[in-house]
Amino acid sequence: MVKTIKGIAASDGIATAEAYLLVQPDLSFDKKAVSDVDGEVKRLNDAISKSDDELTKIRDIAKVSLGDEEAQVFDAHKMILADPEFTGAIEQQIKDQKVNAEQALKDVSDNFISIFEGMTDNKYMQERAADVRDVTKRVMAHLLGVDLPNPSLIDHEVIIVAHDLTPSDTAQLNKKYVKGFVTDIGGRTAHSAIMARSLELPAVVGTDSITKDAKDGDTIILDGLNGAAILDPSDEDVKHYQKLASDFAAEKAEWEKLKDEATVTADGKHFDIAANIGTPDDLQGVVDNGAEGIGLYRTEFLYMQSEELPTEDDQFEAYKKVLEGMKGKPVVVRTMDIGGDKHLPYLPLPEEMNPFLGYRAIRISLDKQDIFRTQLRALLRASEFGKLRIMFPMIGTLQEFRDAKKVFEEEKAKLVADGVKVSDEIQLGMMMEVPAAAILADQFAKEVDFFSIGTNDLIQYTMAADRGNEHVSYLYQPYNPSILRLVKHVIESAHKEGKWAGMCGEAAGDNIMVPLLLAMGLDEYSMSATSVLRVRSLMKKLSTADLKDLADRAVNESITNEDNKKLVEEYLK
Amino acid sequence: MVKTIKGIAASDGIATAEAYLLVQPDLSFDKKAVSDVDGEVKRLNDAISKSDDELTKIRDIAKVSLGDEEAQVFDAHKMILADPEFTGAIEQQIKDQKVNAEQALKDVSDNFISIFEGMTDNKYMQERAADVRDVTKRVMAHLLGVDLPNPSLIDHEVIIVAHDLTPSDTAQLNKKYVKGFVTDIGGRTAHSAIMARSLELPAVVGTDSITKDAKDGDTIILDGLNGAAILDPSDEDVKHYQKLASDFAAEKAEWEKLKDEATVTADGKHFDIAANIGTPDDLQGVVDNGAEGIGLYRTEFLYMQSEELPTEDDQFEAYKKVLEGMKGKPVVVRTMDIGGDKHLPYLPLPEEMNPFLGYRAIRISLDKQDIFRTQLRALLRASEFGKLRIMFPMIGTLQEFRDAKKVFEEEKAKLVADGVKVSDEIQLGMMMEVPAAAILADQFAKEVDFFSIGTNDLIQYTMAADRGNEHVSYLYQPYNPSILRLVKHVIESAHKEGKWAGMCGEAAGDNIMVPLLLAMGLDEYSMSATSVLRVRSLMKKLSTADLKDLADRAVNESITNEDNKKLVEEYLK
Repeated sequence: MVKTIKGIAASDGIATAEAYLLVQPDLSFDKKAVSDVDGEVKRLNDAISKSDDELTKIRDIAKVSLGDEEAQVFDAHKMILADPEFTGAIEQQIKDQKVNAEQALKDVSDNFISIFEGMTDNKYMQERAADVRDVTKRVMAHLLGVDLPNPSLIDHEVIIVAHDLTPSDTAQLNKKYVKGFVTDIGGRTAHSAIMARSLELPAVVGTDSITKDAKDGDTIILDGLNGAAILDPSDEDVKHYQKLASDFAAEKAEWEKLKDEATVTADGKHFDIAANIGTPDDLQGVVDNGAEGIGLYRTEFLYMQSEELPTEDDQFEAYKKVLEGMKGKPVVVRTMDIGGDKHLPYLPLPEEMNPFLGYRAIRISLDKQDIFRTQLRALLRASEFGKLRIMFPMIGTLQEFRDAKKVFEEEKAKLVADGVKVSDEIQLGMMMEVPAAAILADQFAKEVDFFSIGTNDLIQYTMAADRGNEHVSYLYQPYNPSILRLVKHVIESAHKEGKWAGMCGEAAGDNIMVPLLLAMGLDEYSMSATSVLRVRSLMKKLSTADLKDLADRAVNESITNEDNKKLVEEYLK
Repeated sequence: MVKTIKGIAASDGIATAEAYLLVQPDLSFDKKAVSDVDGEVKRLNDAISKSDDELTKIRDIAKVSLGDEEAQVFDAHKMILADPEFTGAIEQQIKDQKVNAEQALKDVSDNFISIFEGMTDNKYMQERAADVRDVTKRVMAHLLGVDLPNPSLIDHEVIIVAHDLTPSDTAQLNKKYVKGFVTDIGGRTAHSAIMARSLELPAVVGTDSITKDAKDGDTIILDGLNGAAILDPSDEDVKHYQKLASDFAAEKAEWEKLKDEATVTADGKHFDIAANIGTPDDLQGVVDNGAEGIGLYRTEFLYMQSEELPTEDDQFEAYKKVLEGMKGKPVVVRTMDIGGDKHLPYLPLPEEMNPFLGYRAIRISLDKQDIFRTQLRALLRASEFGKLRIMFPMIGTLQEFRDAKKVFEEEKAKLVADGVKVSDEIQLGMMMEVPAAAILADQFAKEVDFFSIGTNDLIQYTMAADRGNEHVSYLYQPYNPSILRLVKHVIESAHKEGKWAGMCGEAAGDNIMVPLLLAMGLDEYSMSATSVLRVRSLMKKLSTADLKDLADRAVNESITNEDNKKLVEEYLK
């Protein structure tokens, strides 16, 4: 029976393949007293031996499909299973307490985990806690007779079906065979969605129920254009989606032709479409997709991929590479945005109740100025190799911007005094993502060179709703009139002072948002490189003069997010 | 040597007494191998026996000074020390592992805590984990030869010096002898500050260093009016502060005379000063201080002080008591504001990364409608007994307000159909604390009866800074022009539609904020009952006509929180 499950279209494209359920099974159990202690010890040893066999197999396949480094984790797991301190303690617990193997395994494992996690001065040992957890899960599954998913073993084309996908899940996937994702939860800004877009894989998220609806091996058509998964499709469905897929391919081919064109609307207005990048490796995609610049270089990846604070020289090389690679096109570099949900193993941050409302981004940079100064020096030195713009994340008060600018000027003066060549044309701007700053944009515009609106954070703070929290995901409303009012105020404030305004959040590449932003006069649109040509194609069909009235209604008359979605959809029809 | 330590004035008043340091000592230790196992066991038993003696003494004193119930916790601690399963296991660990008593104590205690915490279906046993932690701390202190503070033993007048004060710390204090608080961290909205104001004790918070500067027994003058602690005061200091204290007492006596007067400014404008309450027990303070109504009845205390969801009848009785007690004066009841930092043991909420941006307040009420409907029915039934106004917390979108109002109308219709008498004059309003709602106040004003601005949350979301997080406390800026712009927009939007606007956050009773709010025309000011007369006295001296220009400058010209603070301070001089 055909079944269509609706969700949120998170990454464009159509794919058909078998379902692969990446779902954690229920590993709960009851504590039981046992009289046949020897029988229980045998159950334990059987489960351990099955787990070990399985790990050997996974490791061998992972070595081939993922590489040596990814496979090493499974060797670490095997070592735990071979450690008599661990397995012996479980056996002893069964004998001493006369409890079932599940309970004994849990007791001993909890104890090991708590000891490892307590070794706060030894990072290596602390990380072993995660290994003990993983191994315990595997042995427990064998004790309970349930199957654990083993994504490393995927060896044919599949569509991943999951409740959610974490970074560690995706690290274990063999990208060669994965044709798409569909999940129960999440929105367009979920990790899985962002990853799907950067891999150009179709994805549908927030279906609520896909892990209940689909079984391993079911045929799934994934419609990432409209946000649907079709289970057990009919011949007609298959035909319909083959047509959709080929139309989409044709559309992409059309977009492809716009690669070397400027972004000009139907009434001849020029706008800049830029790309977001995380590392110099992303440059190729930017060039391939004909972006007119880089609107957001997220430098925190430099810090996150490192074992310690990256040196000034390391940073200089990365920035230089990007600036040179863009051949004179503008590159907006955002200074380190750590904190919130991003952590560095070598930079301990305080435990916080609400990290998104905490010590992060420029708040850290202004407090730990050594780190900040190193980054600014590297940027200043690289400025000679291209068109550099620097922006500070999470600026909430003008004082913070002034403080950051002062540090920049001090480092610049020092370098100049030392005879280092530094560009005199570096623009200094800020992310507009704290509501307080957006409300006071008229005052900020007098002192900054540009604004870049970060919609993900701006929306989450303005709506007071964590964008990663499924229980309040209905409040992540990019078209809510309150957000549009702030965006309009930011753009108008910039223009009044002769400055420019861009946007580097998800919304900048969104089909509903783009017509509204054009009407408001947003100057620069920065997005995933893979969205550039689609948006350029859309803009070429729109006329800014026609859109004025639409935007006025969206800002002043509409009451809900849905109102505005419908308003623009009607217009685009 | 006199030493003056500056901090934040958190609760008015002057006090002089001995310092009592409520500071957790360093209980860290190194794991050591021991050869003299018997000696080590003896060390353990000595520490246990000293701990037991100490607990006996604390319990006996607590019984007299705090009451039987508070003393019971110490009996629970003594029982753990008498339990051979606990102490025997530590002894065994010393013998088996040949480790020092500190390490053995930690190992066994960690194990017990993890087992107790794992009993997720048995709340009673889960709470035993905290007892094990407390007892372990005490024994560890004796093993290490350091002193634990024992606040229950305080038997003379003191000023509490602490890094911070938690609710459980304060529960153990003998209020008779505590003359004030001074802490390292926190702001005016910290738990310790709020508690100090409700007890009318002077308090200074956020000194950064007081726990390092002061020693037990040092004489401290605490200046809660100006935010300072004077250590080792000179005779001159003592004289100066005696004068200040008597001036303050005289001022309070003056305020006292305003108890039965209306709140009228120098130019004859009337405003309402109301009080915030948590339970019907707070009514006496409201009446004693001559408040013109209750501007915020925090109903979550009804839920938090209960073992299970309070019944409709229980709630009805509480609401009726408050409405009757206010004798026709208005009572604004806020529906349940659970979530964020407030939890109910019997209502499991999802684990959230950022609870302040999560599932809380009206978001829960609209999702779990049974709970919401019970509360609304109790309120509707009580409405005949006074002047009831209901407001919904954390409204972010107009759809949420419409949904909440619909539930209210449904329950009202059902009660009326059943022949229950229900007032037809109940006003339905909302908290203004989500920035999105404040920005769209003009649209909300068409559909609500009133707004009550919740400054604590409004500031924390607008500035994107957790108000409880010391690392970003500099961003808790009530006078930031962005906040003032939102407040002004909310008030003007209400008035344009013939509605009223109040404020029930900390700022409503703040000397700097009040002149600005008067100028903007805020109608109702709701605050701690103990602040009512001070603010009434302040308002009588101010003329709204004079203040217009001040408010315009604060909203349009000022750039920082500090600018505005100075602006108003200059004016008030």
